[in-house]
Parts: sequence; C-alpha cells; structure tokens
Amino acid sequence: MSSVEEAEVVVLGWWISMFTSRVRIALAEKGVKYEYIEEENFPDNESLLLLKHNPIYKKVPVLIHKGKPINESKIIVEYIDETWKEGYSLLPYDPYLKYQAAFWADYIDRHIYKGTRMILDLKGEEMEKGVEELLGYLKVLERELGEKPYFNGESFGFVDIALICYYNHIIAYATLGTFSIEKHCPKLVIWATQCMKRESVSKALPDPNKIYDVLIEYRKKIGVED
Amino acid sequence: MSSVEEAEVVVLGWWISMFTSRVRIALAEKGVKYEYIEEENFPDNESLLLLKHNPIYKKVPVLIHKGKPINESKIIVEYIDETWKEGYSLLPYDPYLKYQAAFWADYIDRHIYKGTRMILDLKGEEMEKGVEELLGYLKVLERELGEKPYFNGESFGFVDIALICYYNHIIAYATLGTFSIEKHCPKLVIWATQCMKRESVSKALPDPNKIYDVLIEYRKKIGVED
Repeated sequence: MSSVEEAEVVVLGWWISMFTSRVRIALAEKGVKYEYIEEENFPDNESLLLLKHNPIYKKVPVLIHKGKPINESKIIVEYIDETWKEGYSLLPYDPYLKYQAAFWADYIDRHIYKGTRMILDLKGEEMEKGVEELLGYLKVLERELGEKPYFNGESFGFVDIALICYYNHIIAYATLGTFSIEKHCPKLVIWATQCMKRESVSKALPDPNKIYDVLIEYRKKIGVED
Repeated sequence: MSSVEEAEVVVLGWWISMFTSRVRIALAEKGVKYEYIEEENFPDNESLLLLKHNPIYKKVPVLIHKGKPINESKIIVEYIDETWKEGYSLLPYDPYLKYQAAFWADYIDRHIYKGTRMILDLKGEEMEKGVEELLGYLKVLERELGEKPYFNGESFGFVDIALICYYNHIIAYATLGTFSIEKHCPKLVIWATQCMKRESVSKALPDPNKIYDVLIEYRKKIGVED
C-alpha cells in the first residue's frame, strides 16, 4: 500500500513553488500532520500521481484528504480552514472582512506573478519596466497593509499566506532586477519579517539564493543571460 | 441625497456584462431588493460612482451594501450568499462540495472568456481554432455536469450562476462562429433550458441577438468584419 493510500493528508508539491508553500503553511498553522511528496521532475514531467489527482491543470500543489484531491492553492487554503476548524481561523467570519481577504488574495495572484515574469523573461529597459510594474503592485499592497501588523488586522491569515509565499521569490527578483524592496515598500519588509518569525512560514519557504540560481539558469536557457 | 446613499443595496452594472448578470441572479435568488444603476458609457468612460467604488479595477459589477463596495463577481456572489442566509444556500456547506463549486467556477472564468475572445478577435482558420478551443472547454464542463440537473446536484447554485451568465453570449458566438452548441454539448443545452425557467435568470440575461449585434459592431471596428 502506498503512502498516499495510508496517510489521511498528503501534499504533492514542488520545493520552489509558492503555491505549494501556501498549502504547507496553512496545514502547519492548523497543526495538521501530513505526508509531503516532492514532484521530482516537475514541471518537465508530471508524476502519474499528480496526473491522477489534478487531471485538469496537471499542476502542484495538490492536497489529498482521505483520498480525495483538492486543487488550486487559494481554494485549498480555504478548504483547510473550513475542514480543520480547531485553532484560529485563517479567514474572518464576517462576510465583509472575508470579502476583503478574498479580494486581496485574488489581487496578489493576478499581478505579482505577472510582474515577476516580466523581470524573468526580459532584459535591459524592458526588464526595468517589469521592475516598475512589480513595484507598482507591491506599493498597492503596502497601502492596503497600512499600519496593521497583518493584512486582516491583528492575526496572521489568508492574505498574509497568499503574499508571504512570494516574498523569498521577490528577494531573488530584487537581486536580479537590482532594486530594493526596503526602499520602496518598507512596511512590507517589516510585515514579512514578522511573518518569517512563524515556524509555519520559515519552514515552508525556499531559500532566496536557491531561487536566484534557478532564475539565472532559466534566463541562460531562454538566452537573456550569458 | 442620491439613491446610492438612500438604498441599502445598490448594483452598478452594464447590461451586456455576464459578471453583472451573476450579481443580479444571486440577489434575486435570495429575494434581496436593490437599486440597479446602469453604467451608461462603459467601458469607454467609467462613471465617477464606479471609479469611487472600484478604484483598483474600474470595472462592473460593483455591489454597494450599506455604503460599502464589494468587487469581483464570484466574490460578490459568495458575499451575497453569506450575508443573506435566509432561503437556500448558493454554496454547499460541506467543505469538499464547496471546494468543487469554487474549482469549477474558477475553471469557467479562466477558460470561457478566453475561448470567446479568440472567436471575437479573429477570422478564418484562426477563428475556427477559437471555436474548437471554446467547445473543448464546454465539453469538460458537460462531462462535469454529467447526469445531474445542476452542477452541484439537485439545486441551482454557485457554478450554475457562474456559467449560465455566459450562455446567451455563447449563443451569439455560435451564430458568429457557425457552430451548434446542441450538437457538441446536448446536456449543457438541457441544463441551460432548466436554468432559464427561473425568473432570476431569464430577467438577468441580455438578449443573444443584441449581444450578436454588439459583437459584429466590435468586429467591424477592429477590422475583422466588413
């Protein structure tokens, strides 16, 4: 019998994937034990396990709970929050506060990845445009954070999970695009430092230096880096 | 005092917008009375009211509830479901069923619009590719519907609302791209006919002939139609 059939909770993931980190943080925050299975040849070759449990998108992360697959990181985090209700809630109960959390998590997924791709795939002036665009999105998020310790107020939650998983990637992109996050978004840096103090977060995020190496390797492959 | 300040519930919308229809259907299903304000010069010029209540995206629909704005159609429908709890629920309570609803509504928004745009903006063989792509997505949805009357089973809900708002648009695209929905997706046609029997739906959807006229006008403007 494989571990997928034995374990009640399984995560199929990929070490560098920010979306995988989201699921790991949410499970850790809820104190849920799980079996982690790394997709070893992702994204070039998906495992049969992944193809079976995410036939539509063929992407990590997948949460498998009692044999049933759950796909798409934000939806997985919401599922985790509603399934394991003990401890504090990652999403607020109040419908308007919950709406705000859903809105900003959606904003993060629409923009941050797009901004980083422009830096990753381009060079020179075009890359600088990507830096400007990414910083523009981050500044909107910094305004939304304002003086609060976390996005929804006093406690770490849904929007924090959505954004912090990009943070070490953004550090790598800051090296690549030679910009300072601290100079442009000082409050986000303070917020990130607070988030990183949580074991759930620090254990789930990949090392920025390793991310940087992967970015450089990719840039060499597509011919925008010598 | 303007109607926005007087009314407890206001919808800012645009007659042809499928996303506006979603909000109107959800409110009608819940029996919530609201003031409807048409964005008269959208999308060329947004009203000051829209800019004030959706400064990030500047798009319809916006729900204004007790003066507070709620943006993004799927998130608005979820807000409506959680705020007006009387009557039946649009989203299931069970976390796994709720996950499935969120997954398929997300699938619809990722793919259907993209498929229709390929038909709208292109001609000849490229347009035919758009038709194939759109039909491919619809067939996935038809498989997911299977023999159920509605996407989540016996009752009209979140995924039905997400998809039915595209239906009259798809009818217009079927005329434009000369394909038959019934031939490729007979179960979706039966499902849509059932949905249309609901006053909440039939009153909220624009006339396919009017949609078709707008599509033709747009195609002439961008030079793909004589």
